[in-house]
Amino acid sequence: MTAEADVREVAERARVAARSLAVATRERKDAALQAMADALLAETPRILAGNDEDVARAEADGTPANIIDRLRLTPERLEAMAQGLRDVAGLADPVGEVVRGGVLANGLELRQIRVPFGVVGMIYEARPNVTADAAGICLKSGNAVLLRGSSSARSSNAAIVAVLRDALATAGLPEDAVQLVPGDTHDSVKALMRARGLVDVLIPRGGVGLIQSVVQDSTVPVIETGVGNCHVYVDRAADLDKALAIVLNAKTHRTSVCNAAESLLVHAEVAEEFLPRVATALQQAGVTIHGDAAFAALDGVVPATDDDWDVEYLSLDIAARVVHDLDEAIDHIRRHSSAHTDAIVTDDQRAARRFIAEVDSAAVLVNASTRFTDGGEFGFGAEIGISTQKLHARGPMGLPEMTSTKYVVIGDGHVR
Amino acid sequence: MTAEADVREVAERARVAARSLAVATRERKDAALQAMADALLAETPRILAGNDEDVARAEADGTPANIIDRLRLTPERLEAMAQGLRDVAGLADPVGEVVRGGVLANGLELRQIRVPFGVVGMIYEARPNVTADAAGICLKSGNAVLLRGSSSARSSNAAIVAVLRDALATAGLPEDAVQLVPGDTHDSVKALMRARGLVDVLIPRGGVGLIQSVVQDSTVPVIETGVGNCHVYVDRAADLDKALAIVLNAKTHRTSVCNAAESLLVHAEVAEEFLPRVATALQQAGVTIHGDAAFAALDGVVPATDDDWDVEYLSLDIAARVVHDLDEAIDHIRRHSSAHTDAIVTDDQRAARRFIAEVDSAAVLVNASTRFTDGGEFGFGAEIGISTQKLHARGPMGLPEMTSTKYVVIGDGHVR
Repeated sequence: MTAEADVREVAERARVAARSLAVATRERKDAALQAMADALLAETPRILAGNDEDVARAEADGTPANIIDRLRLTPERLEAMAQGLRDVAGLADPVGEVVRGGVLANGLELRQIRVPFGVVGMIYEARPNVTADAAGICLKSGNAVLLRGSSSARSSNAAIVAVLRDALATAGLPEDAVQLVPGDTHDSVKALMRARGLVDVLIPRGGVGLIQSVVQDSTVPVIETGVGNCHVYVDRAADLDKALAIVLNAKTHRTSVCNAAESLLVHAEVAEEFLPRVATALQQAGVTIHGDAAFAALDGVVPATDDDWDVEYLSLDIAARVVHDLDEAIDHIRRHSSAHTDAIVTDDQRAARRFIAEVDSAAVLVNASTRFTDGGEFGFGAEIGISTQKLHARGPMGLPEMTSTKYVVIGDGHVR
Repeated sequence: MTAEADVREVAERARVAARSLAVATRERKDAALQAMADALLAETPRILAGNDEDVARAEADGTPANIIDRLRLTPERLEAMAQGLRDVAGLADPVGEVVRGGVLANGLELRQIRVPFGVVGMIYEARPNVTADAAGICLKSGNAVLLRGSSSARSSNAAIVAVLRDALATAGLPEDAVQLVPGDTHDSVKALMRARGLVDVLIPRGGVGLIQSVVQDSTVPVIETGVGNCHVYVDRAADLDKALAIVLNAKTHRTSVCNAAESLLVHAEVAEEFLPRVATALQQAGVTIHGDAAFAALDGVVPATDDDWDVEYLSLDIAARVVHDLDEAIDHIRRHSSAHTDAIVTDDQRAARRFIAEVDSAAVLVNASTRFTDGGEFGFGAEIGISTQKLHARGPMGLPEMTSTKYVVIGDGHVR
């Protein structure tokens, strides 16, 4: 069978499941989430056996240790996945929420209510925990999900999905609410991207290459996620102690994530004092600084190339330059930022206001580390990704972002 | 110059203008809208002269009279366009609205606020009034707009845009906030659709062909609008007098619009009484009924073909069939509706609840004409189109739907 026919088949089954899910009560969905969590724990040996196959294959292929670590499941990681599902069960059901409503002048009752998208396609890399997370968030928001994970995690994902589907069936919800997309060549990804009308929205999660290819080729509406070239700008009115703490935290707290800082801008008036301090602190934390002329005058700083201003290192590297004023900082960020998260450190209210208004990014922070742009930190309880696009959702996406809306109009024989 | 370079040039100018617009106060934007309205009236002769050229060309080309009527501008129509701009000035500014906000447990202040998209591309057909409407709505929502109207209206659009740009400049806002896309071949449309990164969102308004081509080929995010295969389902528990009035209104009040009814479904238990009544009334109003066997047994009813269930007639035609129960009605609508607007006529609360929950359309109406799905009727004050997609906006789109959001996070040296 062709990849297209494969995708059509699972998508049509998903559409049938989605119709039941859309009208499932919160009670039933939460019971299913708990059953899914229980099943992950009960079936730990089966899932770990699948994961062992993936890890063995990756090791045989000479995969780097850090990638293998992301791929590896442990009883503790399965417990965290199960807890994630229970957390989602504890969140309010977005479906049916009245977004706005009232009575029109002619007596018509108008309500805009949240409804599920229908069928969500997820294309993602590496970590098998995304499989359970996405299944849980989609289920709670009333959506059926088609999962296309990395082929390197195929045995883990197959085991997890089999376990979750059994739990769904036991809980009285259609098991086709959670399905793997068959096939692990690019053809199946391509078929998913062309399944307009069958799949309502596609969410790619992974590296720049994956996301750009989906954005370019998909006819299904896409929510673009996660590439983060995040900036910290230290203003002339910054508290430099706080600035130092924020820069260090944003760069080194966790380097492989999209909300880590990748670029540092420093106002010229504080450069003399701040540059040596921040360079020393970063270097002591193991960070390589790719600096402009001012930074490169310091020991151990690598001169920056043009490319450094646009790169998402995801490593212990940071691009750094001095700017002459707030305008130059904002211009630099508008030109080079991936519009994910950018922060200013300042005690100047006017500078903060301008930065907030003129930096056109999903999250704009004042006196806080870029690491805070996160569904968990924002209190959403669950996150399916961080949108860097402007349509539909921008920034961390929780359950409400996984819904559409519908207008309900009630009359009594009203005509125009 | 190639179409691509042309589009790039106007889009880059639009991006510069958008940056000013994003921080323009409501006061300034409203003053500009009033100036634009004044200018349309003051420059009526100039705009009508441009329109005369378009009308003369259309007449020479043998364009049908109803199309020429849509193309033609009159002093009255210009007054209506000017009033439309004044109406938009009277609406609340969506930019800056706090969508949600609060203080996190760690003391961070979190706000999600509305911000403009940036640059909006409009691709539309025929009526030159869309040019002023779109310019007004985009300006108020802080967006620069690139207008690609029909080549048949090119002289009218050129005159209107020239007048609006002069007014913008006089009001102290960048005239590049409103621009025509140069060129009237398909190349310029194509270049606009591929201008990802320069254009933030594309809104096509027009026939099925135009919209499908944009949806298929655009790499810029699209808001799909307006194709309406709308249904009226007359339930067994319907008040048949109200049902008759609703069917007539939905079909005949205005046939060329997307919220006109195109299909009628009647429950078998009321068919014997209702079919002759509704057929006679529709036929007296000049409507041709394309009916199933039950309808086709009546005088003057044309037997329906399979295609009739999916067509958007936009004329005095309606497809009509009898269904055996509510399930069959819902199944028919889910299969054939364009998911724009579907209505049930019933006094049965359970039937109404099921119809609302299970019909997956942008607007679901109970005991009201499909003609109510409209930004004006919904009280939005202005409408840029009716979205039939699930991402971002669904149903009539007013000013808030023309915005994205941004998270603003304020701390005091917060790190994780």
